[in-house]
Amino acid sequence: MIDAAVRTALAAEGPAAFLTTGPGGPHLVATWQSYLDVLDDSTLAFPAGGYRVTEANLDGGSVLTMVIGSRGGAAGSGTGFRLTGAARLESGTPVHDRVRARFPWCRAAVVFHVTGVERILGS
Amino acid sequence: MIDAAVRTALAAEGPAAFLTTGPGGPHLVATWQSYLDVLDDSTLAFPAGGYRVTEANLDGGSVLTMVIGSRGGAAGSGTGFRLTGAARLESGTPVHDRVRARFPWCRAAVVFHVTGVERILGS
Repeated sequence: MIDAAVRTALAAEGPAAFLTTGPGGPHLVATWQSYLDVLDDSTLAFPAGGYRVTEANLDGGSVLTMVIGSRGGAAGSGTGFRLTGAARLESGTPVHDRVRARFPWCRAAVVFHVTGVERILGS
Repeated sequence: MIDAAVRTALAAEGPAAFLTTGPGGPHLVATWQSYLDVLDDSTLAFPAGGYRVTEANLDGGSVLTMVIGSRGGAAGSGTGFRLTGAARLESGTPVHDRVRARFPWCRAAVVFHVTGVERILGS
């Protein structure tokens, strides 16, 4: 799921925009690609400062969709992916502790279980 | 609208994810920040290869919301913005010619009239 191509894209810096939906409609926010911690082959974790609407949407059952990508590589064509899955905010858990060690300001960890990967950028 | 801070963020490379909505629900795709051509202080243009669902959503009246950002700067904290506005795909127009000069493969230019800018990343 989170294979070598996705990990290579994540190694570049850039915004990682992500979408949830809820009563207020689609909600698009972002983190940085460098903030994404690959916990295993299908799980990402990253810090939550605000993300209050995102949290409410996830609590309401929304899926999470994220775009990541990198122009890196000799050809310069780049690769970008749309990741889809389920996510929740965790506070006071080992994953929160792990994320907080790097980002002391985070009120929670967003734990994103990726179930779908589509390539949307690159030749 | 597209002020110096937004232009500075756009000067960095990275994915520029954007959202439209339609009968199939929210639709999240992307371009590269380096593909975004600032036509004036409220207008961006970028190449369309596919974007068929995006085009249908825009034809149906969807707004377009895009996230851009850069970790650049000495402090490294970075800045990221959510841009909102109206957009349409143009083919056979001077803007399409302009975009096609750089991206010969583009079937149209996405012309994005930005009406709202919110800072969503950075301290």
